[in-house]
Amino acid sequence: MRHAFHDQLDGIFDDLAGICRKVESAVHLATQALLTGRVDIAEQVISGDAEIDRDRERVEDTALSVLSLQAPVAGDLRTVVSALRMVSELERMGDLSVHVAKIARLRTPNIAVPEQAHSTIARMAEVAEDMVRRTARIIEDRDVDQAAELQRDDVEMDQLRRASFTELLGPSWTAGVEAAVDVALLGRYYERIADHAVTVAKRVVFVVTGESPETLGA
Amino acid sequence: MRHAFHDQLDGIFDDLAGICRKVESAVHLATQALLTGRVDIAEQVISGDAEIDRDRERVEDTALSVLSLQAPVAGDLRTVVSALRMVSELERMGDLSVHVAKIARLRTPNIAVPEQAHSTIARMAEVAEDMVRRTARIIEDRDVDQAAELQRDDVEMDQLRRASFTELLGPSWTAGVEAAVDVALLGRYYERIADHAVTVAKRVVFVVTGESPETLGA
Repeated sequence: MRHAFHDQLDGIFDDLAGICRKVESAVHLATQALLTGRVDIAEQVISGDAEIDRDRERVEDTALSVLSLQAPVAGDLRTVVSALRMVSELERMGDLSVHVAKIARLRTPNIAVPEQAHSTIARMAEVAEDMVRRTARIIEDRDVDQAAELQRDDVEMDQLRRASFTELLGPSWTAGVEAAVDVALLGRYYERIADHAVTVAKRVVFVVTGESPETLGA
Repeated sequence: MRHAFHDQLDGIFDDLAGICRKVESAVHLATQALLTGRVDIAEQVISGDAEIDRDRERVEDTALSVLSLQAPVAGDLRTVVSALRMVSELERMGDLSVHVAKIARLRTPNIAVPEQAHSTIARMAEVAEDMVRRTARIIEDRDVDQAAELQRDDVEMDQLRRASFTELLGPSWTAGVEAAVDVALLGRYYERIADHAVTVAKRVVFVVTGESPETLGA
């Protein structure tokens, strides 16, 4: 009975890692659509989000059924409740990828990101995707050390966001208001994806160590 | 025992309503800071957010302790798990008010919102604040009908967001890139506050009716 129960908990974490991999792919494809103006790829991200939503529902159903039927305590309770939160974060990350893809689609056949913002946005996208990829591994391996390292990357993301604002509000910005608004929102979306990744990683630390979320600032 | 337990659940919902009232106040003050350029009010919102964060921790601790000690099932389990989610949403709404206040502070003694965007942003702020106020009542009264009505207001918010984009991307926009970026982000923040309010209200419906969250699109 307890053995089957822990298999169930492991199954929930496998599901979470799988969803995180799908989010990684969504971030990757949304960025590709954004930087190439390929509307077919943007559409793929937008329609693909329904699958992430269905996965979330499945994890929620399983977690609630575990809570109800097994009445877990202590570390097991912490695991199930954390899983419920992590799946919400992951779903939001999928939604944010859709927002990126929608900006790409809105400007097609043009490219939403002007040349002068290209390198900063491309780097933000790269950092975000890399953080999501590592978050999937952190979930799989319950890797507390990697989770701590992830927060250092989030510092780079904050720096990139500031650099992006400096670019688009500086005197050398010639791409106009529409592009500036697109770039500001894209920066916000990638930053939020990174924030959610950090929160998910913190939840893994909480599951493993029992360290209280308030000290994690989650 | 069961009586004391249901008092505990009611206590959690009273706490949630109380947090929602604080968020309502944060939205109100952040908007006031934004539209007047008063930095002292902006600071009040920014420093006041710590109280909302502490309230969230208290609700989480109580909910986890209820899950662990009482092992609730069926409707009671649904209530506790929903409370955990609602408190996360409410905390995010507080964070978004802080984002609004920070834009106000950044531009002080000037006013971040230029004249030509004033009425749309002021209306978005009004709709957001009103939705948060009604969400507090929906939590207090477990009012399923009001929750449904709240979603109709969210439609106005979406329309305002589109109107705002039309304004700031149109040929008559003379306020420049910086103001356009501020207005686009402010629009995003108020829209997200409204989205979270709708999600919280949907959770109340779920608690009362047991209607599954997937059909709620939460």
